Amino acid sequence: MQEPLSQLKDRLARLTDIRAATAVLEWDQETYMPDGGTESRGDQLSTLEGLAHEYVTSDEIGSLLYALKPGLDEMDYDSDEASIVRVALREHEKLVKVPASLIEEIAKVGALGFQAWGQAREQDDFGIFEPHLSRLVELKKQWASCFDPEENLYDPLLDDFEPGITHEQIGVIFAGLKPRLIALVRAISENQDAVDDSALAGEFEVGAQRAFGERVAAKLGYRFENGRLDESAHPFTTHFSRWDVRITTRYSTSNLMRSLMGTIHETGHALYEQNTSPTLYRTGLASGASTAVHESQSRLYENIIGRSRPFWAYFYPQLQEAFPHFEQVEEEAFYRAINKSEPSLIRVDADEVTYGLHVILRFELENDLINGRVRVADLPDEWNSRMEAYLGIVPPNDTLGVMQDVHWSRGYFGYFPGYLLGNLLSAQLWERMIADMPDLSAQIEAGQFEAILAWLGEHIHRHGMKFTLPELTERVVGGELDWQPYIQYLERKFGEIYGL
Amino acid sequence: MQEPLSQLKDRLARLTDIRAATAVLEWDQETYMPDGGTESRGDQLSTLEGLAHEYVTSDEIGSLLYALKPGLDEMDYDSDEASIVRVALREHEKLVKVPASLIEEIAKVGALGFQAWGQAREQDDFGIFEPHLSRLVELKKQWASCFDPEENLYDPLLDDFEPGITHEQIGVIFAGLKPRLIALVRAISENQDAVDDSALAGEFEVGAQRAFGERVAAKLGYRFENGRLDESAHPFTTHFSRWDVRITTRYSTSNLMRSLMGTIHETGHALYEQNTSPTLYRTGLASGASTAVHESQSRLYENIIGRSRPFWAYFYPQLQEAFPHFEQVEEEAFYRAINKSEPSLIRVDADEVTYGLHVILRFELENDLINGRVRVADLPDEWNSRMEAYLGIVPPNDTLGVMQDVHWSRGYFGYFPGYLLGNLLSAQLWERMIADMPDLSAQIEAGQFEAILAWLGEHIHRHGMKFTLPELTERVVGGELDWQPYIQYLERKFGEIYGL
Repeated sequence: MQEPLSQLKDRLARLTDIRAATAVLEWDQETYMPDGGTESRGDQLSTLEGLAHEYVTSDEIGSLLYALKPGLDEMDYDSDEASIVRVALREHEKLVKVPASLIEEIAKVGALGFQAWGQAREQDDFGIFEPHLSRLVELKKQWASCFDPEENLYDPLLDDFEPGITHEQIGVIFAGLKPRLIALVRAISENQDAVDDSALAGEFEVGAQRAFGERVAAKLGYRFENGRLDESAHPFTTHFSRWDVRITTRYSTSNLMRSLMGTIHETGHALYEQNTSPTLYRTGLASGASTAVHESQSRLYENIIGRSRPFWAYFYPQLQEAFPHFEQVEEEAFYRAINKSEPSLIRVDADEVTYGLHVILRFELENDLINGRVRVADLPDEWNSRMEAYLGIVPPNDTLGVMQDVHWSRGYFGYFPGYLLGNLLSAQLWERMIADMPDLSAQIEAGQFEAILAWLGEHIHRHGMKFTLPELTERVVGGELDWQPYIQYLERKFGEIYGL
Repeated sequence: MQEPLSQLKDRLARLTDIRAATAVLEWDQETYMPDGGTESRGDQLSTLEGLAHEYVTSDEIGSLLYALKPGLDEMDYDSDEASIVRVALREHEKLVKVPASLIEEIAKVGALGFQAWGQAREQDDFGIFEPHLSRLVELKKQWASCFDPEENLYDPLLDDFEPGITHEQIGVIFAGLKPRLIALVRAISENQDAVDDSALAGEFEVGAQRAFGERVAAKLGYRFENGRLDESAHPFTTHFSRWDVRITTRYSTSNLMRSLMGTIHETGHALYEQNTSPTLYRTGLASGASTAVHESQSRLYENIIGRSRPFWAYFYPQLQEAFPHFEQVEEEAFYRAINKSEPSLIRVDADEVTYGLHVILRFELENDLINGRVRVADLPDEWNSRMEAYLGIVPPNDTLGVMQDVHWSRGYFGYFPGYLLGNLLSAQLWERMIADMPDLSAQIEAGQFEAILAWLGEHIHRHGMKFTLPELTERVVGGELDWQPYIQYLERKFGEIYGL
């Protein structure tokens, strides 16, 4: 059995290297590449992605995996070896079912769709985007059909980002959460004047923002000898190995908190990638388990920790020193300001409370789209009426409405739910951490973040991609993904702030 | 015939992409990669290089090339198509002759040799480096033996960097040049006081150096929309396509001219890469023809143009404005200072006149090493006695002597001659350009560099790797590579400066 396993590991090591190279090229494109390099970079990425796909679907890897498959039952499920085979097999079996021609067509139509999306936004004309989106929906349905889904075409798409989770499970969770979120948003809206965030407005020098962001990231445990913080139009985290994990942010001189909280968010992602087990290096498992699990880490650091009183009890004096603007602002006023909640149009700028409703709306729409219950042409109206029902506001145009996110233009359906599922998991993890470490608040107030990182390392980070979201949830909290801790966290926190 | 050709082009396009990705990873490693990423980057590069090697030597590409080979005679030698087949065939036929195990061993021993070289330099102990170098010489001899060289094992190594040139041709050229160079160096040495470069010493802010370097590069024709200037420990030029060509430099606050002239040097390389014909994109031919031809471009811009009176007639007022340090320095004094010549120990810091002798010394030694006429153990003594004979100085230790260059530690034998051959070619090109454009000096004085770039584009750049150095020389100057124009240029220029 050792012989095919070591052969498999050798192939997976090279596959990992090819994918790491792809990630370097993408990082470079977002940070330093001159504009003129766009087209040739597209060719290079397409070649590398093609190579990786050939590798994963090759008969050679297939034979090794099928030789190893029968032995899986006798192996320890949680072991590195069993996990390597199991996860590689899952990807291989999935990808060999899709014709290469379909994958190529989706890539091509997705590239055109992305372009059309940009133009449609510039001219605020959904009609420009609509035919491309329709074509992508059709192609993704074809793609889903390759997997003989019993009833729901959305499930195979979801599986790409959130293996082990179905639309039905998400539907149950979101159905419980939605009315409570809507009620909380309304209660806060009726008490808007309770929080004033005008003190956050000011002029903040970019160099000072960068220095402060780096200081906070390092304090949270981000190792700069294995990372860097750069600028990009859209902030992201990427990794080329656990020893080279990079984050980006964007700066606005008039909005300090946006960049700073964004940096803390990406730091949460990066800590995950920097702390996968070294034994998983080049096995295909040294990365986050899924979109949702990744988001649980970033939102835990950004919101549950990063927008808490203990966090700012420690960092606020340093912030005041770095930005004299805040010398005249009381810590409590600052805390309330950074937690101001109100319905807004754009998901990525939404606060903790309203955020979930943006995601639920997208989940409902994309599930309906893929299953033919909503037509692409009706999307703008569907979007707007749900915005009104959930958040009480209506986008003045489609650029600020249905066309605000890039995902669908690239053909990414099934990505959005993870954003909210991650928030739910973050609250469950936090409950468990408090149970394990009753002095957690005191630690944070004292600027001690080592135990938090060690706890996450032990329960989440080190496992990499070994487990699916449900498997991981079961192992960490001894149960299923649950929306109650999250809504309770929100109701408690914002109830106190808004005096509800 | 079209069928296999278009198949070949498809394979070469992908090979080009893989090599471009390798270059991106190397650029990143030299500029922005965090230190902790070194080891995993090594794995990634090794995988990509392995993939490229598999591609080039594959039976698939081989069959296509051999199917196309018989038709070469009927094709126009200078056409894109014939050149694509000819050059790919040359590389394929060469690489299939070398066992993969030998290539891997050279890479491994080279990596160890590079490490040992670093340690040996730190401790100034050639003994640490010696066994590694001996092993590398042995392996490179084995490598050369794969090609049944008739008499000289050095020729196949030379062919890696300078196809179409033999040690015999170089020997004849250098034999003519050497006594004239030695005589010129002596004459200048006897008149050392004629030039005083103390006015160059000062304190120069890095930001201002960068801004001035970028201004000069842009003026010479470097397109920043297709490039960038970054910092690295060792300045270099790299390209990922003709639309993404990047240069680096290093700054010292006490030495403005080193960084500035270095930037002009790299700009010369970059202009070559930015101006290969677009029709050569992804054919394997969109790059410089050889080490020597590349060096002819960098040295033409750095020395013949960049250290000339007309060049500074245009740029000196701007330099004085950017660096008030020079307000009190006359233009003529500055011109003489940047052209000060005196024997020195380190090749990369050598002036125009002494530079050639550093290269001749290395050519003689590596040719003798590979052919067994000099033993590795005797290298330091051989080095020092030649330094004394050619330049009249003896290194105080081996770190400043035989261990100063990285090349041999990596197993690069045959690379050095190109540095000097490129200088020779640059003088031949310059003679031809003046013949074609009698007002060249006036153009430069007026800050007009477009015609120079257009001339080089027409005669050198656009051809990419189509032609070897001898083929290109024949096409541009209607003859062979010749040392006379170069020594005449040096004797004229430095005779005037030093009053010889």
